[in-house]
Amino acid sequence: MKKIKAVIYGVGTMNSIITRMLLDKGVEIIGAISRSPAKVGKDLGELTGLGRQLGVTVSNDATEVLSRGADIAVIAVNSYMSDAQEQLRLCAEHGVNAVTLSEEALYPWETSPEITAELDGIAKRTGVTLTGSGHQDSYWLNMVSMLMGTTHRIDNVLGQASWNVDDYGPELAREQQVGTTTEQFNTWLESASRPPTFGRNVLDALVADTGLTPTSITTTSRPVLATEPLPVASLGITVAVGNVLGFTDIDEIKTSEGPSFVFEMTGCVYRPGQADINHWKIVGEPDVELSNGAVPTAMTTCSQLVNRIPDVINAQPGFITADKLPRLRYRAFSLETYLS
Amino acid sequence: MKKIKAVIYGVGTMNSIITRMLLDKGVEIIGAISRSPAKVGKDLGELTGLGRQLGVTVSNDATEVLSRGADIAVIAVNSYMSDAQEQLRLCAEHGVNAVTLSEEALYPWETSPEITAELDGIAKRTGVTLTGSGHQDSYWLNMVSMLMGTTHRIDNVLGQASWNVDDYGPELAREQQVGTTTEQFNTWLESASRPPTFGRNVLDALVADTGLTPTSITTTSRPVLATEPLPVASLGITVAVGNVLGFTDIDEIKTSEGPSFVFEMTGCVYRPGQADINHWKIVGEPDVELSNGAVPTAMTTCSQLVNRIPDVINAQPGFITADKLPRLRYRAFSLETYLS
Repeated sequence: MKKIKAVIYGVGTMNSIITRMLLDKGVEIIGAISRSPAKVGKDLGELTGLGRQLGVTVSNDATEVLSRGADIAVIAVNSYMSDAQEQLRLCAEHGVNAVTLSEEALYPWETSPEITAELDGIAKRTGVTLTGSGHQDSYWLNMVSMLMGTTHRIDNVLGQASWNVDDYGPELAREQQVGTTTEQFNTWLESASRPPTFGRNVLDALVADTGLTPTSITTTSRPVLATEPLPVASLGITVAVGNVLGFTDIDEIKTSEGPSFVFEMTGCVYRPGQADINHWKIVGEPDVELSNGAVPTAMTTCSQLVNRIPDVINAQPGFITADKLPRLRYRAFSLETYLS
Repeated sequence: MKKIKAVIYGVGTMNSIITRMLLDKGVEIIGAISRSPAKVGKDLGELTGLGRQLGVTVSNDATEVLSRGADIAVIAVNSYMSDAQEQLRLCAEHGVNAVTLSEEALYPWETSPEITAELDGIAKRTGVTLTGSGHQDSYWLNMVSMLMGTTHRIDNVLGQASWNVDDYGPELAREQQVGTTTEQFNTWLESASRPPTFGRNVLDALVADTGLTPTSITTTSRPVLATEPLPVASLGITVAVGNVLGFTDIDEIKTSEGPSFVFEMTGCVYRPGQADINHWKIVGEPDVELSNGAVPTAMTTCSQLVNRIPDVINAQPGFITADKLPRLRYRAFSLETYLS
C-alpha cells in the first residue's frame, strides 16, 4: 500500500504537534502552507520543532501546494466557517480531502448553512470529503451521542467543559474579560456582538443525532469570579477577589418532543491544580453520566484529527460531519493500513 | 413503515424490563418462549408486571414461535456460548435475527471459536444477523474503543468495573465465595475449574479493534475482604472482618507490539452506598480516562439491547459483534424508523 500524502495547512502550535504525529503514523508530508512571512521559505521540520529538516519548504502559494496530489490537507488556521471556508474551498476545488480543527466545522449546518451547503456541493463535484475534527469529535459529540444511546428515555442532557484562558495569550484573555469588574462585565455582555458559541455547534450535532425537533436555542453567559487573588501570566496582572476570571457560556436547545440539551462551557483563568474537565449527565431512564478526569485537550485535539484521516479519506464525498463517520478507532499502524 | 415484530426468548427479570421498553418504542411482540412450567401458558403482560394482558401467551415450543415471522428475537436466557448456541442456532435456522444478553456473545471468537463460526455460517446462509449486546456493548467495549481512538499511542489500558453479588440470589453469592475465610478461598481458587471470564471477552474485542497481536492471556483472582462486619441479604449471614465478600478477576492480554490490556472485574457484596463502577484509564500519549459514576447496569443492559435492534436488523448477515455495528444511537422514535 502507498503512504498517505498530506499537506499541512497552517503552521502553528497544533499543526506542529500534528506534523510529528503524522510522521509517527507513516504519512508522507508533501507540502506546507502558511501566510506568515516569518515561516514562508523555512523547512517544516525546523518550524515545528522536530529538530531535523523534513525537506518540505513552507509556501504561501496554496494553489500550487494543493496541486501536488495530496490525499488529505490538515487545516489548523481559524475557528469560524466565515474564515475557514477559504481553505476548505481551495482544498475541495483542487480535489484534496480536508480535515480542519475549525471548531464551527464540527457541525456547521445550522450556524453557517449557506457556506456549508456550498462547500458540500463543491466537494461532491470533485469527489472529496471535508470534515471538522479535534477534541470535540469524541469528547463532546460522539462519546456523548453513544452515552445517549445507552438510555431508554432522555429528559435532559447537561454537559460541562472548561478551558484555561491563561494558556492562549493576552488577546484571548482580554476577550474573555479577565480582570474586569462585574459592572464592566455586565456592561460588555449587554453590548457585545459575539458569534455563535462552539457549544452551540455541539448541541446542534447532538440534537440532530436524535432526530428531535429544536424549538428554541438560547445562549446566556455568567462570569466566573475570583474567590482569592489569582495571578494571570498572559496579562501580567493579579485578579482581585470578586473580579472576573472569565465566563461560562450556557447554550440550551429545547425540542418540541420534550428533551432539552444544555452545554456549559467555561473559559477562565484556572486556580493552581485546576484542569480541563468534560462531564456529561443525562437525566432520563436511566440517569447516566460520563467524566473524563483531567482532560489533555490540546493533545486529544491533535490525536483525534490524525486518527480521523483514514475515515475522512474513506468517506463518501461532501461535507461529512464527524457524527456521520465510523466510531473513531486507535491507529496502531501506518494510516494507509486503514484505507478501504 | 411496518412495526418491527419481536419474539421474547426467555421470560425473566431482564426480558421483563425489555418487554416494556420494546412496547414503548413501537415494537409488536408476536411471541414469547420459556421452558419454565410456571410461565408457559401465561400471558406475557401478566408475567412481566405490565399490569395488563398483551395477548401473547408464553410457549415452550420455540420452533413454532420462531416460525411466526418475527424480525428479531431478544434472548435473555444464559451467559455462555455453550448454552446460548441452542437459542441462537434455532433463531438463525428459522431466519430470525437475534440479539442476546449472553455475556460471552459480546465477542466469542476467541473463547468459543467453533460454535461462533458455525452460527456465523448458518446466519449467513439464512441471511440473518446474530449479535451480543447489553451493558458491556458501550460501557466496556465501544466507549472504551472510542477512548482509545482519542490517543496517539497506547502503552497500556486498565479497566475497572464492579457488580453487587448480593443482587443475584444465594447461588451466585456462594459461587462468588461470599462468607468464606481466606484459607477456604485460596483452597477453592487452586482447585476451581472455571470458564473464561467475561472480562476476557471484553479484552479480546478491544485488542481485536486495535489490530494488535496477542501474545499472552492470563486471568488471576484476588479476594475482597470485609473491613467491617457486613450483612448479606441473599445468604442471611453477616461476613466477619477479614473474611471474603467476593473477589476480583484480573484479565490481562499482552501484545507483541507492546501495549497491554488489563480489566479488573469485581463481584462482591457492597457496603452501604456502594454502586457499580466503570472506570478506564489509558496510559500513553496522552493519558486519558473515562468514568461513568454510579452505573445503573441492569437498566443500561436492557436499554442498549433495545436500541441495538435496528442496527442488528440492518447489519449484514452473520455473527456480527457489537464492535462492528454503527455507533449506538438514542432512539427517540419507534424502532422501525431506524431501519435502512
